[in-house]
Amino acid sequence: MSKKENGRFITFEGVEGSGKSTNIAWVEEFLRSKRIDVLLTHEPGRTKIGEELREVLLRTRDERVMPMTELFLMFASRMQLLQEVIIPALERGTWVLCDRYVDSSIAYQGGGRRLGVERVKKLVQAMGELYVQPDLTVLLDLPADMIPMRLADRTLDRFESEDKSFFERIRKTYLDLAASESHVSVIDATQPIEDVRNEIAGLLRPLLSELAGR
Amino acid sequence: MSKKENGRFITFEGVEGSGKSTNIAWVEEFLRSKRIDVLLTHEPGRTKIGEELREVLLRTRDERVMPMTELFLMFASRMQLLQEVIIPALERGTWVLCDRYVDSSIAYQGGGRRLGVERVKKLVQAMGELYVQPDLTVLLDLPADMIPMRLADRTLDRFESEDKSFFERIRKTYLDLAASESHVSVIDATQPIEDVRNEIAGLLRPLLSELAGR
Repeated sequence: MSKKENGRFITFEGVEGSGKSTNIAWVEEFLRSKRIDVLLTHEPGRTKIGEELREVLLRTRDERVMPMTELFLMFASRMQLLQEVIIPALERGTWVLCDRYVDSSIAYQGGGRRLGVERVKKLVQAMGELYVQPDLTVLLDLPADMIPMRLADRTLDRFESEDKSFFERIRKTYLDLAASESHVSVIDATQPIEDVRNEIAGLLRPLLSELAGR
Repeated sequence: MSKKENGRFITFEGVEGSGKSTNIAWVEEFLRSKRIDVLLTHEPGRTKIGEELREVLLRTRDERVMPMTELFLMFASRMQLLQEVIIPALERGTWVLCDRYVDSSIAYQGGGRRLGVERVKKLVQAMGELYVQPDLTVLLDLPADMIPMRLADRTLDRFESEDKSFFERIRKTYLDLAASESHVSVIDATQPIEDVRNEIAGLLRPLLSELAGR
C-alpha cells in the first residue's frame, strides 16, 4: 500500500496468556471514546478462508503439521486478511487493531519452530507492496514460566500445548525484534493491568496528537 | 535434502487438459516394468492437511481467494507433501513422479495470476534445504485455445474456469522457464499420444542408464 491517508495500523504481539485480548479490547474502547473509527481483527482467521485455515492450523491432530507448512499457512491467512479487511479499512480512515501480525511469524515459526528469522523475512519480502508496516506494535512481554498459570482455565490448542523452551525461544526472538525495529515497543505484562494500560496509552499519545494536528 | 542416494524425482507440468494424468500413469507402468519402485503423487494435496488445503484452493466460492493467498497455500501444501511423502520416498530409493511442483507456482501464480516470477522464486529460496530439485521435469505444452476441447466433459474447478488469457500467460511462463532451466524438457502435447510417449521414454533413458551403470 502506497500511503495510509488516515487510518493507523496497530498490532499486538506476545505469547499465549500475555493479555493481548484484554488489552486490545481496552484500546478499542479508549479509541472509540475519542471518536475514532476502529476495527478489531486477529490472525490467523477472520476472513472465511482465514477461518478455515485457522481450523487447519490450531486443531490438535494425529498428522504432524510441518513447521514450514505452518509458516506458509500463516502467510496465506495474512494475505487474505490484509487484502480483504485491513487495507480497505486503513484506506477509508479506520484505525485497525490486529491481534498478531508478521512479528508472530518471526517469533513463532522463525524462533519457536527454529525455522530462522531470515527465512521468515524472505516471505515478508515476497509480500512486496502488500506488506503494510504497523505504525505501532505493542509487545506484551511475559516470561515463559508464567504462561501455564495464565492459561490454567483454557482448553489448550496446538500452540498452547507446546513446552516451555518453545515459548522461551519465542520470547527471545520477540525481544531481539523489539531491539532492532523502532515501531515495536515492549511492555512488561507482569505489571498490574492499570500500569500496562497507562503504558499503552503513552504509546498511543503520539499517534493521537498526529490526528489532532491535522 | 543433501543427496538423493537412489530415488529419482520426476515432475510433470502443463496446463489443464495437456495430458499429465494419462502420461504419468503410463510412465508409472513403464518404470514398474523395469522393476523400479515408483510412487505417484500430486500437488496440491495427497497428505491429510494437503487434501484439506486442496479443497480450500479448488472450491468455487463467493469469497475471492486472493492470488497471494493462493500462492502461499500452494507452498504450504507442497512443504507437507515434501516432508511427509516425497523426501522419505526418495531417501528409501523410490522414484517419485509428481503431478505439478514448484514450476506450477511459477507459471500459475507468477504468470497466470501476474504475481511475478521473482516473487515466487523468493518463496523457493525460503524453502532452503527442503527444496528438492527435480532430476527431470516433463512440460506438456498445449496452446491455450486447445484447452476447452480437452476439458469438454469435465465439471470445471476454480482454475479450469479461468479465461484464455490466463492460460496464455501460464504457457508463456512455462516456456520461458524451460528455456532457462536445463531440467525442464518441453513436449508438444498436440502430437499423437504414441509420439508423446516416445519422447518421454527418450527423456527417461539417461536416468535409466545411470541406474544400469551402478
